Amino acid sequence: MQKEVKVVFEPSGRAVYALPGTVILEAAARAGLILQTPCGGAGKCGKCLVQVRHGECPASETDIATLGAVRVTEGFRLACHSHIHGPVTIEIPDRSLFQSQQQILTADSGETVDIRPRVRKICLRLTPPSQHDTVSDTERVLAALPPCSMTIDALRALPGALRIAGFVITCTLVEHELVAVEPGDTTTECYGIAVDIGSTTLVATLVNLNTGADIAVAARVNPQTSFGDDVISRIQKCRTEKDGLARLQGAVIEGVNHLIDELERKTHVNRNHIYEMVLAGNTTMQQILAGIDPSALGELPFIPAFRGALETQASDLRLHLPRQSKVFLFPQIGSFVGGDTVSGIIATRLDRTSGPSLLVDIGTNGEIVLSGKGRMLATSVAAGPAFEGARIINGMRAAPGAIEKVLLDGDVQLNIIGNAKPAGICGTGLIDAAAELLRKGLLDSTGRLLAADEVPASVPDALRRRLVEKDGEINFLLVDAGSSATHQPLFLYQRDIRELQLANAAIRAGINILLRIGGFQPEELEAVLLAGAFGNFIRRNNARRIGMLPPIPCHRIRFVGNTASFGAKRALLSVEEKEYADRVARSVEHVDLSLDPEFQMEFSTAMLLPEDEPDHCPE
Amino acid sequence: MQKEVKVVFEPSGRAVYALPGTVILEAAARAGLILQTPCGGAGKCGKCLVQVRHGECPASETDIATLGAVRVTEGFRLACHSHIHGPVTIEIPDRSLFQSQQQILTADSGETVDIRPRVRKICLRLTPPSQHDTVSDTERVLAALPPCSMTIDALRALPGALRIAGFVITCTLVEHELVAVEPGDTTTECYGIAVDIGSTTLVATLVNLNTGADIAVAARVNPQTSFGDDVISRIQKCRTEKDGLARLQGAVIEGVNHLIDELERKTHVNRNHIYEMVLAGNTTMQQILAGIDPSALGELPFIPAFRGALETQASDLRLHLPRQSKVFLFPQIGSFVGGDTVSGIIATRLDRTSGPSLLVDIGTNGEIVLSGKGRMLATSVAAGPAFEGARIINGMRAAPGAIEKVLLDGDVQLNIIGNAKPAGICGTGLIDAAAELLRKGLLDSTGRLLAADEVPASVPDALRRRLVEKDGEINFLLVDAGSSATHQPLFLYQRDIRELQLANAAIRAGINILLRIGGFQPEELEAVLLAGAFGNFIRRNNARRIGMLPPIPCHRIRFVGNTASFGAKRALLSVEEKEYADRVARSVEHVDLSLDPEFQMEFSTAMLLPEDEPDHCPE
Repeated sequence: MQKEVKVVFEPSGRAVYALPGTVILEAAARAGLILQTPCGGAGKCGKCLVQVRHGECPASETDIATLGAVRVTEGFRLACHSHIHGPVTIEIPDRSLFQSQQQILTADSGETVDIRPRVRKICLRLTPPSQHDTVSDTERVLAALPPCSMTIDALRALPGALRIAGFVITCTLVEHELVAVEPGDTTTECYGIAVDIGSTTLVATLVNLNTGADIAVAARVNPQTSFGDDVISRIQKCRTEKDGLARLQGAVIEGVNHLIDELERKTHVNRNHIYEMVLAGNTTMQQILAGIDPSALGELPFIPAFRGALETQASDLRLHLPRQSKVFLFPQIGSFVGGDTVSGIIATRLDRTSGPSLLVDIGTNGEIVLSGKGRMLATSVAAGPAFEGARIINGMRAAPGAIEKVLLDGDVQLNIIGNAKPAGICGTGLIDAAAELLRKGLLDSTGRLLAADEVPASVPDALRRRLVEKDGEINFLLVDAGSSATHQPLFLYQRDIRELQLANAAIRAGINILLRIGGFQPEELEAVLLAGAFGNFIRRNNARRIGMLPPIPCHRIRFVGNTASFGAKRALLSVEEKEYADRVARSVEHVDLSLDPEFQMEFSTAMLLPEDEPDHCPE
Repeated sequence: MQKEVKVVFEPSGRAVYALPGTVILEAAARAGLILQTPCGGAGKCGKCLVQVRHGECPASETDIATLGAVRVTEGFRLACHSHIHGPVTIEIPDRSLFQSQQQILTADSGETVDIRPRVRKICLRLTPPSQHDTVSDTERVLAALPPCSMTIDALRALPGALRIAGFVITCTLVEHELVAVEPGDTTTECYGIAVDIGSTTLVATLVNLNTGADIAVAARVNPQTSFGDDVISRIQKCRTEKDGLARLQGAVIEGVNHLIDELERKTHVNRNHIYEMVLAGNTTMQQILAGIDPSALGELPFIPAFRGALETQASDLRLHLPRQSKVFLFPQIGSFVGGDTVSGIIATRLDRTSGPSLLVDIGTNGEIVLSGKGRMLATSVAAGPAFEGARIINGMRAAPGAIEKVLLDGDVQLNIIGNAKPAGICGTGLIDAAAELLRKGLLDSTGRLLAADEVPASVPDALRRRLVEKDGEINFLLVDAGSSATHQPLFLYQRDIRELQLANAAIRAGINILLRIGGFQPEELEAVLLAGAFGNFIRRNNARRIGMLPPIPCHRIRFVGNTASFGAKRALLSVEEKEYADRVARSVEHVDLSLDPEFQMEFSTAMLLPEDEPDHCPE
């Protein structure tokens, strides 16, 4: 096993460990820093520019060709073409980030979005009343503001606020409603939170609504996972248990409240200055979060309670924010294509791409959107939790100790998250392992691991010895007992390959059916955008090798980060983005795979792993 | 003492006890039944028509002249001219009531109001979804309704409600908002509550919003009275005690919640079908009820927090109604002329009278409105609690045992509420006693009770003996120890007369200043409308005798009942009435007596009791 080295990214200070040879783009992604790659990592556009501050990182020929010798001597590199050699500190300019902090810029179109949140703070310096000017406090304030109504909480605060600071107050308006008043000038304190409600993970970003800057990010496991990994089991819980909905809603609300606590603790932001929360999740997650019984999502004909955005206030959800803080739940497309997908579409401007494009968010529920010829088609596939490491015998989440990368050369080379001893394998490691086993001829296209005496003669002995028979099936030894964190050998079992095939086939069948309905061949795809925490760690060559993605050139397969979070942030920062989300939710056509007569055939075909290696391209 | 007799009114079944000789109009008022008297009780208009069902009630000449001999033999009488002789049952036709149940009809203009509440229930019979019709529940319902938004509570109820009754549901709309959905057809169950928030008394009327009919009325003492009788002491409580506002708000909300409980208990109405509550009270009452600090109402320059109607929902006030039931607090005119006065104006159409008219609501805070020459002027006077029996040594509220009527003839004749032994004197008894003492020459115009040897020779000995000296002052013995409920003699003390003079002068000075600003002489007044629980029991001759009201003919002085309740009910039943209330609140000019240079002089003049008896007219 090669030793990993530490890679530090500035200015965030985030650090990860990576094997020498890892491309900078990948190491940055592992630190949560998604770089712009409009050329798909072909080394041509120069958008993924980074600068090496300390340590060694030899320039590639592409670096010199694209950036010029002068900039290369200054330490500039293309993140898509430069590789880690040893411990290194790399600065990532804000403009290279896909989710830029300073301006909201889409990777695709270069289009900017004005920061125009629906929350506005206005400081008023009023003339105090007198015996000859006895209009009510409300009239005095409203006369100085654009036309608006007033919440009862603002009204309750008003008489005191006016008289504390000599009739200087700050009014917070949400569109045409005055929601808060405070004494003095507090206009700089204006915040919102964008939340990605994943089935597995909750991610909250605290955003300055004046500048659009991210202030802090907090993430945690969705506490609902203790009730079941997938949405179906959670819907079932609501259907069968009297207080099921209340408990599931309570769990996710508690999770979000913990994130609010964490954001407040990490920063100097007072939660009373958090005026809006925008949340995006799949339909079941959003419906449970809102306290709406999801039973009808779990039975034919699978009906969601709402489609347009759900607007409410913090107290209606028992969120620990000011009672009348606004809450915006994303508009949804259908029962299994929800607000997170809409959020992903507005984050990537998928509807505005020049050629046919796919957005693929791989998770326990995979969502796939095809945009082309002026239509958008969306579907969801039940990939199951294999990519989260669940139902894999030695599987685990992408946490410290997880085998996240597998290379088969003379022997097995592994990359372990957190530079720790290996404890299990996560989703990306699983894909890598399967792809590498296919390449080396240890796995056939039906997904069967071959016995040591069946493999090609070219397979090195070190690898051949790892094929171990048990109960009539062959399993592949990844780590022996002496090297593992658990002191038990870690295997990739034949059964694990079957789980992977099922997940893989679900996604590929979904892609194929959308392409067929849209009238496209896979090779016509201009872009495949991989979204979600998991998508961003996939090795593209390997995903193509196992057939999860069509065999299009790697540079057309792009990582777009946590688009649910990013779209939620866009909606938080701009009224137009909210309207855009609404238009998207109305215009996308929902494809129900269970109604498609060819789904079974497509699925069966996709269960077979490709015989041939697609043209290799640089990661 | 004469013995009272039982008077039963049909169809309500309400019963009261009254002295023989009491005019029917007065007995009915004591039962809370205010009759129409557009001619001011002159016996000319025939609007106060009633029918004697059992018992004796001889017809007057006016009865025969106005109604004709035939109808009189059928038992019809004018309530303003017929007197009780013995136990009797009287039917009051709905059309004779000032606050008619079946149609909202104003006593002044005969104008009707359409029932057009902002709450509407609509039953939908929808086609259930199928695999080929998978629109969301919300879209399915909204497509069948006029354009509207939806509350989160309605959304939460929706999926279940649709599926319980085969996609037949009833939707409740409040203007353009869908606030509730229920399975099946519940359109007949549609209610609201109108509440008069008095400083002393809370009165709630449960109203059927489909028909406009009153279902039940409940009343109770405002629990805030335990914190002080008048609004100033309650404001002071909020200013000086940390939790003062919370406690006062909690008290009145608890009072209203008890009324809701009582209305539910009395009827078969489920509170989940109560969709709106309209409340009217003075500015301090409304502000405390809404949880808004009233401190600025208690210090110069006396500023209210709001003027326009305050619209909120039940949960914001912790009212025990469905969380999202609408709450409408009346628009207000100024710091001391509040929503109850606006409600009174819309109840009486005061702004639409043909000649100059006064609306006088006598309570601890007296509100006076003058309408004439296209303007309305309003003021409030601190009458103090004397009319509630407070600060009167043997005073009490108008409850069983209270002396509510005093006549001096050969001796004292008293009417006691509830046919009980006397326990104290209430406001109307106090006015009666003062007026009668003036008439008989036992009280001079400075308000001094004369000694037995100072009174005119014509005074009977029985009365003269009742003037008892104590500590250099003369007091008047109303009831001796042997006849009183307390076994103590009951006196009208010299100090009580002073309290009455202060209350009296406050009201009269307010009336005089409004008339002066409006440019009217008292005799030009076409109508003086007496509102409020107390106002309706005043004997008009006596109120004129002590100078509380100007010496205009009695028929121009009319009783208009609890106009705060009635106006609140109008607003509950009609969107136009809410808008009318808003226009009234904006157009009335608020007169601050404390700023009027002549207030002190007017007040001092009004402290003197009139020397002469105005022309007597029938009560």
